[in-house]
Amino acid sequence: MTGSLVVVGTGPGNADLMTPATSAVLAKATDLVGYGPYLDRIPTIRADQCRHASDNRVELDRARQALSLAASGRQVVVVSGGDPGVFAMASAVFEAVEAGEPAWRELDIRVEPGVTAMLAAAAEVGAPLGGDFCAISLSDNLKAWTTVERRLKAAAEADFVIALYNPASKARPHQLGRAFDLLRSIKAAETPVLFVRAAGTVDSKIVTTTLAGADGTTADMRTLVIVGASTTRQVGRWIYTPRSEPGVRS
Amino acid sequence: MTGSLVVVGTGPGNADLMTPATSAVLAKATDLVGYGPYLDRIPTIRADQCRHASDNRVELDRARQALSLAASGRQVVVVSGGDPGVFAMASAVFEAVEAGEPAWRELDIRVEPGVTAMLAAAAEVGAPLGGDFCAISLSDNLKAWTTVERRLKAAAEADFVIALYNPASKARPHQLGRAFDLLRSIKAAETPVLFVRAAGTVDSKIVTTTLAGADGTTADMRTLVIVGASTTRQVGRWIYTPRSEPGVRS
Repeated sequence: MTGSLVVVGTGPGNADLMTPATSAVLAKATDLVGYGPYLDRIPTIRADQCRHASDNRVELDRARQALSLAASGRQVVVVSGGDPGVFAMASAVFEAVEAGEPAWRELDIRVEPGVTAMLAAAAEVGAPLGGDFCAISLSDNLKAWTTVERRLKAAAEADFVIALYNPASKARPHQLGRAFDLLRSIKAAETPVLFVRAAGTVDSKIVTTTLAGADGTTADMRTLVIVGASTTRQVGRWIYTPRSEPGVRS
Repeated sequence: MTGSLVVVGTGPGNADLMTPATSAVLAKATDLVGYGPYLDRIPTIRADQCRHASDNRVELDRARQALSLAASGRQVVVVSGGDPGVFAMASAVFEAVEAGEPAWRELDIRVEPGVTAMLAAAAEVGAPLGGDFCAISLSDNLKAWTTVERRLKAAAEADFVIALYNPASKARPHQLGRAFDLLRSIKAAETPVLFVRAAGTVDSKIVTTTLAGADGTTADMRTLVIVGASTTRQVGRWIYTPRSEPGVRS
């Protein structure tokens, strides 16, 4: 039997934000590989399905395990949260392919898109990503902090809306405060800042503030932070970024 | 009866990339408002559902119509493609709220997230959005071209992966060529460039090239363009951006 590997994302958490395409892929799998809490979001579909749960921060080991299983003929699904291509497992799988067995390059590998956290977070508050925007992971586990700072500075100076993934963790409590300090040196004090914890789940919690008032300790691993552009503003109880620049109308 | 307005996205096109949450919202609507081709993606759910199809580029008129219907007590769904918060209808609705009747600010308005085009496009080729990335609309209908250029330059200099929405249309055939010229002055000639047309549909078509070889006339309204970062590369038949910078490993 020919094996296969599909990398999927569960979406932000609620089952009704996982695509039917991903549900269909999960239903056909013989093996599910992923970080334990993400696997726990998947209901048991078949009794003969093997689950291979692993800890956080062992992405390459998990990718290699999945590739080995696929090479042995299994129908493997690697389970990420959100969208698997955004700060998640898809890249880790291709890194493992690149560094691994030559035969892995011939495997049937596919990626299924999903709803990534910033889209769910944005939807909960209105439409803050309504203009040009960027997504930056604040983790310096895999890149230099100077790279993070360079990208924050460029994004602020060019007036992108900025979505911050992985804003803080127990091992990295101070990065977000440093990021806010840098952004305060470039952007207006009244720029809206949104902390959306557990977006797209029943536990979702929103904190709306300004860049002047933003406190890095408000965020944890499950928080997505959005820093507005110069045009981002409040209307009623929503925050949104208009599609147009001031003075430009089609 | 109290009216409501929900802004949803159909995802990139295939029905199995629309979330169950969005399907549930559509099933409850009394009125569907949207650009004709997006409404055509929604199967008839109930005979008593009114469809209000409009042309492209009348987003504010459409938003006002939807808000009026909701204010009159209807259960209105505004239908976008992709994710409604990314270069789509959610911002137009809040713009219309801001400029419209004071009572509209009290309406029950919600946004449902969806799979935006760049995620579907990325999944089709591998994981090109695996690092920090930004999304820029190349349309200068609603912002100055100098703003587009400033953001392209900032994104290139800070080595973001760049997703280009609305890269070209009949009315704007030359913007993408100008964008490539600008990017070529900053980024390496061998940077991968991906043209993904009709991503996430059965008609999907992928062109993989380099920045040196990228031709602006390859794209049309249905194309999503991804320009890699310095680390974006090919492995096997996939294109991906590794999570880490060269020399940095956790």
